[in-house]
Amino acid sequence: MTTWQSSAAAAIAARFHRVRRCTLELCAGLSAEDLQLQSMPDASPGKWHLAHTSWFFEQFVLGRDPAYRPRDPAWHYLFNSYYQSVGPMHARPQRGLLSRPSLDEVHDYRRRIDDAVGELLGRDDDAGLLELVELGLQHEQQHQELLLTDIKHAFWCNPLQPAYRAPIAAADAKAVPLRFVAGREGIVEIGHRGEGFAFDNETPRHRTLLQPHALANRLVTNAEYLAFVREGGYREPGLWLSDGWATVQREGWRHPLYWQEDLASEFTLAGVRALDPHEPVCHLSYYEAEAFAHWAGARLPTEAEWESAAQGVAIDGNLQDARRFQPRAAAVGDTGLQQLYGDAWEWTASPYINYPGFRPLPGSLGEYNGKFMCGQWVLRGGSCATPRDHIRASYRNFFPPQARWQFAGLRLGQDR
Amino acid sequence: MTTWQSSAAAAIAARFHRVRRCTLELCAGLSAEDLQLQSMPDASPGKWHLAHTSWFFEQFVLGRDPAYRPRDPAWHYLFNSYYQSVGPMHARPQRGLLSRPSLDEVHDYRRRIDDAVGELLGRDDDAGLLELVELGLQHEQQHQELLLTDIKHAFWCNPLQPAYRAPIAAADAKAVPLRFVAGREGIVEIGHRGEGFAFDNETPRHRTLLQPHALANRLVTNAEYLAFVREGGYREPGLWLSDGWATVQREGWRHPLYWQEDLASEFTLAGVRALDPHEPVCHLSYYEAEAFAHWAGARLPTEAEWESAAQGVAIDGNLQDARRFQPRAAAVGDTGLQQLYGDAWEWTASPYINYPGFRPLPGSLGEYNGKFMCGQWVLRGGSCATPRDHIRASYRNFFPPQARWQFAGLRLGQDR
Amino acid sequence: MTTWQSSAAAAIAARFHRVRRCTLELCAGLSAEDLQLQSMPDASPGKWHLAHTSWFFEQFVLGRDPAYRPRDPAWHYLFNSYYQSVGPMHARPQRGLLSRPSLDEVHDYRRRIDDAVGELLGRDDDAGLLELVELGLQHEQQHQELLLTDIKHAFWCNPLQPAYRAPIAAADAKAVPLRFVAGREGIVEIGHRGEGFAFDNETPRHRTLLQPHALANRLVTNAEYLAFVREGGYREPGLWLSDGWATVQREGWRHPLYWQEDLASEFTLAGVRALDPHEPVCHLSYYEAEAFAHWAGARLPTEAEWESAAQGVAIDGNLQDARRFQPRAAAVGDTGLQQLYGDAWEWTASPYINYPGFRPLPGSLGEYNGKFMCGQWVLRGGSCATPRDHIRASYRNFFPPQARWQFAGLRLGQDR
Amino acid sequence: MTTWQSSAAAAIAARFHRVRRCTLELCAGLSAEDLQLQSMPDASPGKWHLAHTSWFFEQFVLGRDPAYRPRDPAWHYLFNSYYQSVGPMHARPQRGLLSRPSLDEVHDYRRRIDDAVGELLGRDDDAGLLELVELGLQHEQQHQELLLTDIKHAFWCNPLQPAYRAPIAAADAKAVPLRFVAGREGIVEIGHRGEGFAFDNETPRHRTLLQPHALANRLVTNAEYLAFVREGGYREPGLWLSDGWATVQREGWRHPLYWQEDLASEFTLAGVRALDPHEPVCHLSYYEAEAFAHWAGARLPTEAEWESAAQGVAIDGNLQDARRFQPRAAAVGDTGLQQLYGDAWEWTASPYINYPGFRPLPGSLGEYNGKFMCGQWVLRGGSCATPRDHIRASYRNFFPPQARWQFAGLRLGQDR
Repeated sequence: MTTWQSSAAAAIAARFHRVRRCTLELCAGLSAEDLQLQSMPDASPGKWHLAHTSWFFEQFVLGRDPAYRPRDPAWHYLFNSYYQSVGPMHARPQRGLLSRPSLDEVHDYRRRIDDAVGELLGRDDDAGLLELVELGLQHEQQHQELLLTDIKHAFWCNPLQPAYRAPIAAADAKAVPLRFVAGREGIVEIGHRGEGFAFDNETPRHRTLLQPHALANRLVTNAEYLAFVREGGYREPGLWLSDGWATVQREGWRHPLYWQEDLASEFTLAGVRALDPHEPVCHLSYYEAEAFAHWAGARLPTEAEWESAAQGVAIDGNLQDARRFQPRAAAVGDTGLQQLYGDAWEWTASPYINYPGFRPLPGSLGEYNGKFMCGQWVLRGGSCATPRDHIRASYRNFFPPQARWQFAGLRLGQDR
Repeated sequence: MTTWQSSAAAAIAARFHRVRRCTLELCAGLSAEDLQLQSMPDASPGKWHLAHTSWFFEQFVLGRDPAYRPRDPAWHYLFNSYYQSVGPMHARPQRGLLSRPSLDEVHDYRRRIDDAVGELLGRDDDAGLLELVELGLQHEQQHQELLLTDIKHAFWCNPLQPAYRAPIAAADAKAVPLRFVAGREGIVEIGHRGEGFAFDNETPRHRTLLQPHALANRLVTNAEYLAFVREGGYREPGLWLSDGWATVQREGWRHPLYWQEDLASEFTLAGVRALDPHEPVCHLSYYEAEAFAHWAGARLPTEAEWESAAQGVAIDGNLQDARRFQPRAAAVGDTGLQQLYGDAWEWTASPYINYPGFRPLPGSLGEYNGKFMCGQWVLRGGSCATPRDHIRASYRNFFPPQARWQFAGLRLGQDR
Repeated sequence: MTTWQSSAAAAIAARFHRVRRCTLELCAGLSAEDLQLQSMPDASPGKWHLAHTSWFFEQFVLGRDPAYRPRDPAWHYLFNSYYQSVGPMHARPQRGLLSRPSLDEVHDYRRRIDDAVGELLGRDDDAGLLELVELGLQHEQQHQELLLTDIKHAFWCNPLQPAYRAPIAAADAKAVPLRFVAGREGIVEIGHRGEGFAFDNETPRHRTLLQPHALANRLVTNAEYLAFVREGGYREPGLWLSDGWATVQREGWRHPLYWQEDLASEFTLAGVRALDPHEPVCHLSYYEAEAFAHWAGARLPTEAEWESAAQGVAIDGNLQDARRFQPRAAAVGDTGLQQLYGDAWEWTASPYINYPGFRPLPGSLGEYNGKFMCGQWVLRGGSCATPRDHIRASYRNFFPPQARWQFAGLRLGQDR
Repeated sequence: MTTWQSSAAAAIAARFHRVRRCTLELCAGLSAEDLQLQSMPDASPGKWHLAHTSWFFEQFVLGRDPAYRPRDPAWHYLFNSYYQSVGPMHARPQRGLLSRPSLDEVHDYRRRIDDAVGELLGRDDDAGLLELVELGLQHEQQHQELLLTDIKHAFWCNPLQPAYRAPIAAADAKAVPLRFVAGREGIVEIGHRGEGFAFDNETPRHRTLLQPHALANRLVTNAEYLAFVREGGYREPGLWLSDGWATVQREGWRHPLYWQEDLASEFTLAGVRALDPHEPVCHLSYYEAEAFAHWAGARLPTEAEWESAAQGVAIDGNLQDARRFQPRAAAVGDTGLQQLYGDAWEWTASPYINYPGFRPLPGSLGEYNGKFMCGQWVLRGGSCATPRDHIRASYRNFFPPQARWQFAGLRLGQDR
């Protein structure tokens, strides 16, 4: 074992404990009852997130050792999410029915996994191991965000509309004028460069052709979206994709998911709060983002346009680390592209498909991303619930076009 | 206030505290997580039962005093079950999404209600009050049974199949031969006589005409039902009602709800356990009970036949008070009609409709029973989850024909 | 073969040809396209009715002869309705997808069956045969009514709202005041007496106990029902059964099925027509009939009360034979019970269950009635679409409580 | 009016009558009953296709003249498909309920439209008119194909499985070995060039970047697909997209739509017929095409790869004009790319989205294509049901990934 290797193992071990602790911190104000809520099939209970992320390490890291004995073999069935190749799994919509194992048992399970992974990192540092631990941590960070969006949805379903965090002071931000900034055109490279971690779906880095275009300097605001609502956006079929209009009709949508009927307040993780006109609009479906762009005489950016713009931009912004858990108004006076990272995921005009030459991870981990490449759209840039050390320019998030419970908004783009 | 009245108030107050305490005792082994489970729209979380039964007293007993101030007006919406005339209510299938109020808050709520009702009974004893308190207690006892059947269903949904109570020792009972006992015929009276409590749907007492008939001396056993299963009962459409057969096909029924695929064991509140051949078969739908009777060359008794047979029989048996929570084999050597009370509710051949001249309770409490008189069938006699001081000869329970999660079995009847 | 037998065979043969021809006459104005419409799973195409009624004779009459060769064995699957014991069948909701066999082929099939049955009745007259032919004719008469109600529903689904028959002249009837007429009380006999044809579900004749009661002298009118609608009947949950209210909400019911939004006109088999205030209200579900009776401070009659009143009354009225196909106002000046037969089936307060001692027909014909004895309510008296020689005092029609597309209305009853 | 213009009008008029007559010829063997079938919401009755295509001319060609009076204003509602901006429309799943207007009336309607358009083309030839007539004809040709695929599905739903055309002689073709042909790489242009007709979604022509790749010389055959089926393709989740696997499970798919259970015969427009091993496999969903390619170690081509390969290739093949209505085996001895046009539409790896700079047609016709750019995949090349003068290299067909009732198969592609 070389010194270099040891320090790599030490670094990942430190990061391991930091990320795992962070997950617990996010649950600090939540009771065992809160952590069992599953408000819709797309969402999972917090307790399930706590267990599943631990199972991931057990299955893919500790399970590499044939001598490893799991905490309870029956839990494999409960906490496998969608890896068909490692066996059958508990039905997703039924995750909320698992009062057992208890939260205490799950916490104990986490500690066992923490100890075992920590111990393993103290005696082994082959590159494959370190990569798998890093994958497990990136996976856990994804679930941190889901834990927040899922509890937000669950609390919103409770007529008492409880708050997850303390009130957020009202801002006195001013409007930042909308401006379009020309992007690169011609052949550019996108996709992960090869340094640091990336998911398989960000690879291979490849050449792509950008059309002449420009991107808005900031995200679309509540005030702008409110104008769309007030001017009849939800009543005009001509603005919508056909499936979008059908969804608007079927679901009775009249505004973004968490806005109240008065169009003046919204449900947030800090409870109901006056709508801040300058904050980025959030909790939109792709359909709504696309219809708004249409109404505004613009369009959504492609994921290549976005990534090209983000390459070289420092990763900073209103991310999970700020512990605000709510988008924040753009900075007055900043003249460049703002809010690329954080605040709200940006719906793009790009369906989520494979990059040319894409190869999924080998084995069961190949089920992580590739099998979802149908019927979803790419989102870019992270949100107020995304950890800073989890997001990057090449990161591809994806959701079906009707999904609204994520922190998802939009930035306008246009042809030039 | 007369002495007689005072003693009536004292008696009801004692009963009030006993019944309320019993509800808590039934929850003793259940965690906050367990008590939040809602495994299907027909079932409710234990915590909701705890709160709703308290709300019932708040709404219909304490709320008679215009000066009464509820614990939290917002809870009215959460814990109203189906009383349209007292206002809108939380959607039934969403009861499991209420992590707040917490179990601790609900326990506190119960204590507040207990204190307030206790205090009220110390200073007031008008007959109307005492009747309403008794109604609230009968209501709470119904929910005690539902709490048990709901937690049984929820635990069964968990692949770990946890147990609610300690294991039940295997019995070495012998089979009690099936025998038919002739019933009364001609005009008889059924319905509540007027002494003691009864629900409105048990009234008025009225004359009805019994055809010549006989009733089986005991409930149908697991061994008998197993013969029906083994001989293809679930594969032969000719044995079933049309809706029943459609349900068998759609749901893939092949045996009673909690039997395992091996037809040799079943899920009980004490966990999975070998099927006892002499115990009454339980957790049948009306469709299954009816198909079995058809197969056996018999029929279900009418509710009037059952009530006529039960009149004058002492209320005793394997009821909730025995804390077994599982049917028990009939007693060898007993030559009369056995198991009329307890073990398993008996599906009857009688649709649940009003008695001639039926008048619902006045006001909102009129919604208690009358509005459900369509599409359900009457069950009689109580089960191993029914309190002894809650059941009576005239008691009419009712469920839709496809319901299986109640402790419901059958007794055969026949024409003579 | 005796002379008496011959004349019985001759009589049934004449009736056979008359009824079969009547079915064709009812289809006279309908095209092959009209006769293929299936507007909902509960309804069937006219062509299917034409074929199925012929199949019934083929299966149960001609098929008694082992040497009989069917027109096309594949049609057995297509035109079996619900007789599980004679083999599997085409899915009911798919009946509208059978463009082949063509209407011409089905007419040819009918002629083949007519000839074969006619020929059989010329050489055989055993009682079993004659009974089966009569059953087939009663069956065909039931389908005549369904053919009319199904085409009414199908035409109503067409935005052009075509008419089946020529316009009906507007009436200038006056209102007949509502009056209650006392019925018999005590033990009476109901059920078929044994002379002439009856379905198995009308037997056995048996004693039943009538409570003191009275029946309205005529059916409830459009004007009376309109008052219920205008006074908020469809907005007041307290008037409805729980399932009824859920149905009103889910389906958005605000008036009887074929009334227009203006509450002043209705769709009829003669096209859209002004609502006649004195005509019986029609196309109600059980829920609506029951809610109206509740609102009116009355109740629905039981089937025994109805039958007791109808015993001995001549079978006459606005029946299919009048070819009006629309209820007609009660006769001014008639002081007795009017409209017992014809106009609109009368929902009763009686769930459709077996009579005491009921035995279904032997063999496959036992599936005719008995297996539907769950979840439906009895209707009595026939309608403007029922043949006069098909209805009788003991006749028990039955439909689920939400069914509205039959000619179904109500007569009020009350306790005395 | 110039001579040149007159000849353009004359040419389009001739084409108009030719295409319109062709539609009728395709219906020649179908009865009024056949033409009313709607076997699923995605399909439409033949009669509706006949009427809707005529309505399209009435609305968008004849309706340009404000003095034009439609045949029946009520038909506008019936035969508008999805143009929200010209008014509300009859619900799609209810199209099969329109027995009125009759087929005869629809034929009469077609003649009226034919006459009016013919007359208009005799007196007016402005470019806008000619373009709209051409659009109407291309639209009608699309519906010719749908008429065939819809009647195929409807006949398949009939247990008698009737044939639309006379039997097709069995072929004695030999297998054509699979070979991959390198495609262009680097920047190429795709999209409509500007000569002749194109739909808006084929524009603008634009540059795109092709990765190194190759395409198979012919379509995948039944024999090849059968190997996939026999080797467990439908039982191995690892081969499928997540949504695809869920669909396989939910729908019970085990082979292509029209294959029989014996895997040796298939339902065709000529009735049931032995599966020809060398014919292209057909009636696949995108999911199946993608899973097969995965299993075969290849991938689907992108639409740009396909179009680049097809540019300059003569439009020929087994198209609608051949009146075979069934794919045909590739030609032995042909060494180039075969079957680019005709036989079966080729699923591509490209989601159906807008080309860069896409502008929908102005006005209501902008609803033709653009609003469906979500959740569908592009298919290329036409099928045995596509008219030769309707298909072209830039033609973009699109269907949702679960659609199977189109003549859709696949060609393999691969990275180089």
